[in-house]
Amino acid sequence: MSTQPQPSQTVLAEEECWELLAGQKIGRLATSVAGEPEIFPVSFAAADQRIFLRTKPGTKLAEVTISPRVAFEVDEIGDTSSWSVVVKGRAQVLERDADLDEARATGLVSYLEDGKTVWVRITPSEVSGRRLVPGEQR
Amino acid sequence: MSTQPQPSQTVLAEEECWELLAGQKIGRLATSVAGEPEIFPVSFAAADQRIFLRTKPGTKLAEVTISPRVAFEVDEIGDTSSWSVVVKGRAQVLERDADLDEARATGLVSYLEDGKTVWVRITPSEVSGRRLVPGEQR
Repeated sequence: MSTQPQPSQTVLAEEECWELLAGQKIGRLATSVAGEPEIFPVSFAAADQRIFLRTKPGTKLAEVTISPRVAFEVDEIGDTSSWSVVVKGRAQVLERDADLDEARATGLVSYLEDGKTVWVRITPSEVSGRRLVPGEQR
Repeated sequence: MSTQPQPSQTVLAEEECWELLAGQKIGRLATSVAGEPEIFPVSFAAADQRIFLRTKPGTKLAEVTISPRVAFEVDEIGDTSSWSVVVKGRAQVLERDADLDEARATGLVSYLEDGKTVWVRITPSEVSGRRLVPGEQR
């Protein structure tokens, strides 16, 4: 072990977190209702330091309406380096025209374009990121 | 639109979910403490229809001990097809020798081998999976 590179973690600055988010299309949204966590893969857009999602009326949307505290994670896993960014904040279903215009301006295209007409915006209270470099023993 | 392939979702059988889980190394663990969701990327092994993780004493571990209901998600996103599997269940920090032997037998190597000496096992109450095929308009 002593001659091998050691695994390392680096904390990312918030600005770098947003740059990384801007380059990705799919993240995972975690919600919690009555102490029960849920997790969903979702297409997203990052704009103006907020996260925009689209959904259909259903589970995901219902969770966000009942319990707006969410955690949203995006990562990129590679053999020699990886990163993960977590955005914690409040999710809000958008209804005002000005908000909807802003959301549509992101140009977000969902992976599954199946009638997702409802826009959700996550306003962060905390953004954190890490870059991981595994040791050679992997 | 009418001449283009439509986006589709297929529900996966539980057996297929486990086959897909067995082929992946990294998932995302969602926990909930006091209504606040957390999400962590984690290395994992699937064996005997359970999920095994390793961790260090710290946030992740503390959350699991306080609030063992978790959701665990693994996916593979491609341009023409994707899948996502979600395992919901209870997480337990392993302490008995027999449990630890079973966990170590999975051969799980963490992405970051940085002293993760604590084993956690998720026993599922629900396993669900979907395969997604986007339409051509993407």
